[in-house]
Amino acid sequence: MKIAVLFTPLGLSAPELAGRGVVVIDVLRAATTVITALANGAKAIVPAATSEEAVRLTANLEKDGLLLAGERKCLKIEGFALGNSPREMTPEVVSGKTIFLATTNGTPALVAAQGGDPVMVGGAVNFKALVERARAVFAERGDLVIVCAGREREFALEDAYTAGRLVRALKRGSRKLRLNDAATAAVDLTTHYDDWADALSHCEAARQLAEVDLGADVAFSAKPDRFTVVPTYADRRIT
Amino acid sequence: MKIAVLFTPLGLSAPELAGRGVVVIDVLRAATTVITALANGAKAIVPAATSEEAVRLTANLEKDGLLLAGERKCLKIEGFALGNSPREMTPEVVSGKTIFLATTNGTPALVAAQGGDPVMVGGAVNFKALVERARAVFAERGDLVIVCAGREREFALEDAYTAGRLVRALKRGSRKLRLNDAATAAVDLTTHYDDWADALSHCEAARQLAEVDLGADVAFSAKPDRFTVVPTYADRRIT
Repeated sequence: MKIAVLFTPLGLSAPELAGRGVVVIDVLRAATTVITALANGAKAIVPAATSEEAVRLTANLEKDGLLLAGERKCLKIEGFALGNSPREMTPEVVSGKTIFLATTNGTPALVAAQGGDPVMVGGAVNFKALVERARAVFAERGDLVIVCAGREREFALEDAYTAGRLVRALKRGSRKLRLNDAATAAVDLTTHYDDWADALSHCEAARQLAEVDLGADVAFSAKPDRFTVVPTYADRRIT
Repeated sequence: MKIAVLFTPLGLSAPELAGRGVVVIDVLRAATTVITALANGAKAIVPAATSEEAVRLTANLEKDGLLLAGERKCLKIEGFALGNSPREMTPEVVSGKTIFLATTNGTPALVAAQGGDPVMVGGAVNFKALVERARAVFAERGDLVIVCAGREREFALEDAYTAGRLVRALKRGSRKLRLNDAATAAVDLTTHYDDWADALSHCEAARQLAEVDLGADVAFSAKPDRFTVVPTYADRRIT
């Protein structure tokens, strides 16, 4: 039994994920946004590595039934219908829609994680459901890769904390578990913070969001178990 | 005052380091090997990103006075005079020599850190001296970047632990210190291990070295403050 955590998707290659169970974590904010949108009735999310790619992917599609969403430097991309705030993903706005999403860290991480089977999407807001789903996959495969989106190609505390919580939950009852160093460190980290609100109060991404008046997104993203959906990414679509 | 830790050199670019104080950490084993060689009288170390580069760099040089050293998968490279074991770097072998060194993680990290000013090399074996030197640079610049070599492009516990110890030492007496998330997490990690021997007993690199009968290198590398030299990397040479 083996769990590997990657603190950033840098250096990740599709072949090494082939046939392995993968969890992609991006608490602030892409994973939280994806989970919220699907919980509120969106049909699917298509992650794009860049905003240009999102625009290109939608170029020949019926505009009815689709929404462009995404951020650059935390703020909504000009011309896009939505930003990357989970609070925008209300049932009224997203129900029945396919959302093409381009973010700085989360959607490139998702695109890099293609090849996993399945690729699950996790954050605090679906944590309990994520643990159950990941436990089932892990029991079947004996192997799990947890990819943190990180922040601007670097380590992000909120994602590492969540990864650590997940590893800790999966460790229970597992014998002869092999962790890579990042998984060991992520578990160590969990003892330093009471909960997501505490961990997020120490992280750079939360500070940056507060600076652009998106502190409410941090509070939204820190509350565990709002939703029971565990989105799965396959064939370029998250459902 | 600002300290940034990078858990791997991936994504590091020379321009972002220009004029900033940098510490490169690679406990197992390149930094420990470099420190030991210089403490034992080597004239200089020239780090190479690959073994081919090391061979190329020495092609037109007098073979007298130089040594090729390095490893692949922990083991000495065929045709090289030395591996990457600090225990090989005895005064008899290295005194007065320039060593061209190619390793899997450490020397690529050093090459990636070029552009820092200064670039200091640290491990457990020179930790106390490293703290003093880094403190002086930090006081002057108000800014320090700590680059962990990591392991096969991923997080390495022993380097992160050392980075955390260094940040913790520099924090004392510093007000209004800004840490990036990796620096925060590295400091958190330090409380989980008693000392380097304990941290190294939990890390993958140490396990791998033990498997190829190089466990003595782990013990050597875990002992703090064997040496008082803090190697500096400039103009492609570490002295």
